[in-house]
Amino acid sequence: MLTTLYNQLDAAYSEMVEIRRHLHMNPEPSFHETNTARYIRDYYEQLGIIVEHGVGGNGVVAKIQGAHPGKTVALRADFDALPIQDQKEDVSYRSTVDGVMHACGHDGHTATLLVLGKTLYNMREELSGTYVLIHQHAEELVPGGAKSMIEAGVLNGVDAIFGTHLWSTTPYGRIDTRVGPIMAAADSFTLKVQGRGGHGASPHETVDAVVTGAQIVSTLQTLVSRRVDPLESAVLSIGSFVAQNPFNIIADQAVLSGTVRTFKEDIRSLMETEMERVIKGITLATNSECDFKFTRGYSAVVNHEQETLFVKDIAQTIPGVTEVYDCPPQMGGEDFAYYLEKIPGSFFFTGAMPEGDVYPHHHPKFDFKEEAMLIAAKTLGTAAIQFNYK
Amino acid sequence: MLTTLYNQLDAAYSEMVEIRRHLHMNPEPSFHETNTARYIRDYYEQLGIIVEHGVGGNGVVAKIQGAHPGKTVALRADFDALPIQDQKEDVSYRSTVDGVMHACGHDGHTATLLVLGKTLYNMREELSGTYVLIHQHAEELVPGGAKSMIEAGVLNGVDAIFGTHLWSTTPYGRIDTRVGPIMAAADSFTLKVQGRGGHGASPHETVDAVVTGAQIVSTLQTLVSRRVDPLESAVLSIGSFVAQNPFNIIADQAVLSGTVRTFKEDIRSLMETEMERVIKGITLATNSECDFKFTRGYSAVVNHEQETLFVKDIAQTIPGVTEVYDCPPQMGGEDFAYYLEKIPGSFFFTGAMPEGDVYPHHHPKFDFKEEAMLIAAKTLGTAAIQFNYK
Amino acid sequence: MLTTLYNQLDAAYSEMVEIRRHLHMNPEPSFHETNTARYIRDYYEQLGIIVEHGVGGNGVVAKIQGAHPGKTVALRADFDALPIQDQKEDVSYRSTVDGVMHACGHDGHTATLLVLGKTLYNMREELSGTYVLIHQHAEELVPGGAKSMIEAGVLNGVDAIFGTHLWSTTPYGRIDTRVGPIMAAADSFTLKVQGRGGHGASPHETVDAVVTGAQIVSTLQTLVSRRVDPLESAVLSIGSFVAQNPFNIIADQAVLSGTVRTFKEDIRSLMETEMERVIKGITLATNSECDFKFTRGYSAVVNHEQETLFVKDIAQTIPGVTEVYDCPPQMGGEDFAYYLEKIPGSFFFTGAMPEGDVYPHHHPKFDFKEEAMLIAAKTLGTAAIQFNYK
Amino acid sequence: MLTTLYNQLDAAYSEMVEIRRHLHMNPEPSFHETNTARYIRDYYEQLGIIVEHGVGGNGVVAKIQGAHPGKTVALRADFDALPIQDQKEDVSYRSTVDGVMHACGHDGHTATLLVLGKTLYNMREELSGTYVLIHQHAEELVPGGAKSMIEAGVLNGVDAIFGTHLWSTTPYGRIDTRVGPIMAAADSFTLKVQGRGGHGASPHETVDAVVTGAQIVSTLQTLVSRRVDPLESAVLSIGSFVAQNPFNIIADQAVLSGTVRTFKEDIRSLMETEMERVIKGITLATNSECDFKFTRGYSAVVNHEQETLFVKDIAQTIPGVTEVYDCPPQMGGEDFAYYLEKIPGSFFFTGAMPEGDVYPHHHPKFDFKEEAMLIAAKTLGTAAIQFNYK
Repeated sequence: MLTTLYNQLDAAYSEMVEIRRHLHMNPEPSFHETNTARYIRDYYEQLGIIVEHGVGGNGVVAKIQGAHPGKTVALRADFDALPIQDQKEDVSYRSTVDGVMHACGHDGHTATLLVLGKTLYNMREELSGTYVLIHQHAEELVPGGAKSMIEAGVLNGVDAIFGTHLWSTTPYGRIDTRVGPIMAAADSFTLKVQGRGGHGASPHETVDAVVTGAQIVSTLQTLVSRRVDPLESAVLSIGSFVAQNPFNIIADQAVLSGTVRTFKEDIRSLMETEMERVIKGITLATNSECDFKFTRGYSAVVNHEQETLFVKDIAQTIPGVTEVYDCPPQMGGEDFAYYLEKIPGSFFFTGAMPEGDVYPHHHPKFDFKEEAMLIAAKTLGTAAIQFNYK
Repeated sequence: MLTTLYNQLDAAYSEMVEIRRHLHMNPEPSFHETNTARYIRDYYEQLGIIVEHGVGGNGVVAKIQGAHPGKTVALRADFDALPIQDQKEDVSYRSTVDGVMHACGHDGHTATLLVLGKTLYNMREELSGTYVLIHQHAEELVPGGAKSMIEAGVLNGVDAIFGTHLWSTTPYGRIDTRVGPIMAAADSFTLKVQGRGGHGASPHETVDAVVTGAQIVSTLQTLVSRRVDPLESAVLSIGSFVAQNPFNIIADQAVLSGTVRTFKEDIRSLMETEMERVIKGITLATNSECDFKFTRGYSAVVNHEQETLFVKDIAQTIPGVTEVYDCPPQMGGEDFAYYLEKIPGSFFFTGAMPEGDVYPHHHPKFDFKEEAMLIAAKTLGTAAIQFNYK
Repeated sequence: MLTTLYNQLDAAYSEMVEIRRHLHMNPEPSFHETNTARYIRDYYEQLGIIVEHGVGGNGVVAKIQGAHPGKTVALRADFDALPIQDQKEDVSYRSTVDGVMHACGHDGHTATLLVLGKTLYNMREELSGTYVLIHQHAEELVPGGAKSMIEAGVLNGVDAIFGTHLWSTTPYGRIDTRVGPIMAAADSFTLKVQGRGGHGASPHETVDAVVTGAQIVSTLQTLVSRRVDPLESAVLSIGSFVAQNPFNIIADQAVLSGTVRTFKEDIRSLMETEMERVIKGITLATNSECDFKFTRGYSAVVNHEQETLFVKDIAQTIPGVTEVYDCPPQMGGEDFAYYLEKIPGSFFFTGAMPEGDVYPHHHPKFDFKEEAMLIAAKTLGTAAIQFNYK
Repeated sequence: MLTTLYNQLDAAYSEMVEIRRHLHMNPEPSFHETNTARYIRDYYEQLGIIVEHGVGGNGVVAKIQGAHPGKTVALRADFDALPIQDQKEDVSYRSTVDGVMHACGHDGHTATLLVLGKTLYNMREELSGTYVLIHQHAEELVPGGAKSMIEAGVLNGVDAIFGTHLWSTTPYGRIDTRVGPIMAAADSFTLKVQGRGGHGASPHETVDAVVTGAQIVSTLQTLVSRRVDPLESAVLSIGSFVAQNPFNIIADQAVLSGTVRTFKEDIRSLMETEMERVIKGITLATNSECDFKFTRGYSAVVNHEQETLFVKDIAQTIPGVTEVYDCPPQMGGEDFAYYLEKIPGSFFFTGAMPEGDVYPHHHPKFDFKEEAMLIAAKTLGTAAIQFNYK
């Protein structure tokens, strides 16, 4: 059965590339992916596959019923692009939309899942169980599309979910994953320290927002060094500190902003609570005020143990996979997190490093090795099919 | 003799007002005061007074020789305006020059000295000694006009110098002065902290310029609290802290600037040296670099004891003076400092608070009570004449 | 009249020395000066001078009535010793009491005032007004004797008060004083930072009292650098920081103590209030607790302007005085402060530097030049007598 | 074969207890374990087992040769006691040596290995390969016994090593271990901050060691928060900060000490290097000096992957083992680290929680469940034997 899968996918590789390039040339930013959603819907409907659209926004969901009874497995691909100007040279499939670009590989994810969907549909007489193909909009922009698609019911009756990210800085042929946290919760915050400005020569008549801001920055260092269990991970970075004044004026206000990254919900909450405590304390100490806004990004992506060991096992057997690597977690965010909060499943990275120059995700020259889509499709497909025989 | 002086000044008061208003309507910014300089020169030359022009820049110096031998006393008035838009309402003499304004009273200083000069010239047969009338350009902008006028020789052979500032926030009728420091040395500095930027999730691959900047701000607090003699005055204020970045980026650079105010040369040097030490230490501790520029503004104005007690004594006798006040020093700067570094003398404030709304110096609605010019002229004139009889 | 005063004092010099040495050999610590008080009382009573004893404790007050009507002037001398072991060598008058010593010159103050009192009594027929001789106990130990003597009424009806301190590090022949603050308010404080101890490897289970203490130390630096008017003086020093633990234990508690010195009541209160604010804020920020005790020492000694200028004037005329010096204020404390809070007066230092080795006050080898007592007596006596002719 | 092993061990359990209690009553502190070493030697020699003594100090090594060719496997047990007063009540085997106690279970380790050694010797005809029984002295005291025993050659020709620690706070029946770091590198440090003391009222004449110490404490927080990869673990705790002075004295010196815990050599070196950098920087900034001593404790115990998975596998099969737990690493230290730096192997914890009151290791009432020795012996024995069939 898997041989059939692999052969059919190999045969459809050129279609996969064609779809990917079409999407690459026609990117749409998060929450505005109406044409892409229509494209996906049309693809399935032309094949006769039942498809739901407008799911939790621009989401599209296809369902394929195997001939035999079995479990329900979901596969997910995101399809939104980024507000980045494509700067790739010498490629025929450069973005045709000014200031918008598929700089994260979601075009590849979509092409992979569409062709895999078609293949599974072709094989439906042999298959057991149900296959739910979740085409998700808006992964790049908080609050993301996953939450609303889940609220719309896409996980109802689903036993497990799998997803992958093509990864341009991981060697082609390698699959990376790990049990437990694999991507971080990425939160942001803003601090507006309000002092009382005045002349630089008369500090006693002012409340110095720069001195207060500096004390907050220093004291916040103790959260990671003293409040977080040293066996857990947490980052608190203040990227921005702005109090712009003439040299002889004491600052009325300082605006700070930054990010917090964590892998566990309790550490994440601890960071927020302790930040509040520090800010309250320092502003009390300095007689100033502070408007503190903590904005939660996506939760951490936490891979389930059994499903991840299962992916690692089957990954070893996929043609083209040369290494399955137990990777350290990444500090970036993904709203795949929300699926895994609801049902068992696993997320993995499919090595897609191109030959020649390599650019990181979100870079204006980002690209990936298209053959990796084939590996992604085979791994997701195998996981979905084999999940019934586990 | 003083009665003659007072009567003549009283008689010329309307001329004083006229001159002041003419200058007020035609302000010129520091180092560009060519018309004002020409106006001063013409005034003296029409009277037959010997005048030197182009002294150390736009400076103008008149000399009046008394009939009797005696000491040489200099009086100084500055004549530059500020790059401020005049926002006064309902006055006939508002500035006619866009974005330039006499917002510090130098127009009044000039009118005062011109009419006093004319009066002294009229009285020259009765007078002893020599009277040097220093009309100085560019007081508002470092390096100021005083230094170059001194280098051009205006103090050669001068025994003492007196000067005043009309002061809009001091009650009319009051003269403020003090022995020793009366105005601060006002220096400025800039710090460019150079770290190594990077992603907010990977602090270990960066050198965080915000954290370094914050530590510098905190450690610099110890200069005033620990390194300066508690019986001396010093201020170090950091008005500006700018590291503007997206929330998830660790700052590559932070630019800080501020001011240092001191009254004594050794404390001033101490502050500069200790700032250097702190900055070197913290950047060593954090593995970052820092470009530190300390720019000296004017020195502190330090009144000579004998000449100041002399001014306080004669001030008590001036018609219109109701109080002579031993004021605390001010944190602002004045390049009168340089005259007092060379020869004995004293600087005082002439109360010029207007009726109705009061605006501080450098405010777009700044104005002063014109009658105060008469008090200033009488006090300066008396000091100059009586200095021979001290 | 002053000639009489000086001649009689000169004649009594050897008695003065005798008294001083007797007291020096028989020192009594603060609040335990019963024999010294008895000695003073006996001295006056044997002369027939009216004397009150047990005034506000061990205080003794003599009153001399001049034959002519006039003002009432008080002179004050303190008479307690210190808990210091006398280590002087080769002097006949070393302390005979183990562990107690006149290491601050109060023996000299007492001898001076006793002999001056006798002299004024002898001259009473020539004198105008009333002379109140305040022999005060317990100057060295907070709360001091001045407060209770004032409460007992020693200043009732008194027009002005004068006092002096023999000063071993000021050259003989010099009188030091100044208008305004001449000695500081010397307060002390203790901070007990209570965290939650634990193992050094598990900071997240603790509240680190050392880190909290360190933050308090750093933040307290901003009081002097930011909260106090730069034209005013204030010192905050933390001399002690104790959290003693094995290297692998996180501190449960840190005990800090230190001193605050100020010259003005509002700055003093500001320091206390702002310390409280900082401590509350930092302990809130770090989730710890802090027991803060601020203990007021004596207030600042603030000399009244008119009386001090008067002392400076008459000091110039005293035989033996070679210089009257406008000294900077001292950071030490004196409960003469409380007299000056109630009535006009002035406090001055009488130069008493010995030939040979010079030891500061409170040193086990402290001594002073005895001839200085004569200058002190003449200056105090002249001030008292002349105050009627001012 | 394993059945034989388990039966023989079960039969010898009472001997194991007897040995353990004998040792418990006769503890010897680290580097002074001569009687214990003699006891071990005698035990083996009486059985006819070849034994080397005085290995790298008090170390004793026995070798058992299986009849068949095979790999060489080492098993290690430590045998030193602690300078702690035994406070156990109501047990017959309380320490008979004042101030010395087996408060960490090394008596149990020794009894386990002796009886296991005897059993393996009995079974030698059936066994393959060589069994090296390492009885190590001085585990509790840096530099420990492991290093010198390795230098003496105990690992020569050894293919793998296994060791266990009976653990009083882990439930009986559970085996804890993990791939990678399982126990931390535990280093210590001392900082002597040298300022220049002086009077609390004159900070400008001093270099304040308390303020400098506080700044060092605060800046050291940034090592964990900014310099260490957030995916790695590191702890820096300053347990002690001592600058004891009268309240009105500014501290001449402050002595700080603390601990650093890490799991990887590069992070460990980073911490030391960065501490040096911070200390150099802050002392430069404050014009003080600092004597910094970083004392390395044991390295981290880093379990080899293959050997640890092997132990986890066989542990599942041991009679009495109810759970094999993938434990988080512990922050304590163990010189078993040095064996694993040289050759493959694994270290695990054998649950030995007693019924009734549970006391942590190094507690004066510490005890463990003796049956756990049997589980330890079976697991070590199985690992040693099965290692040939892996």
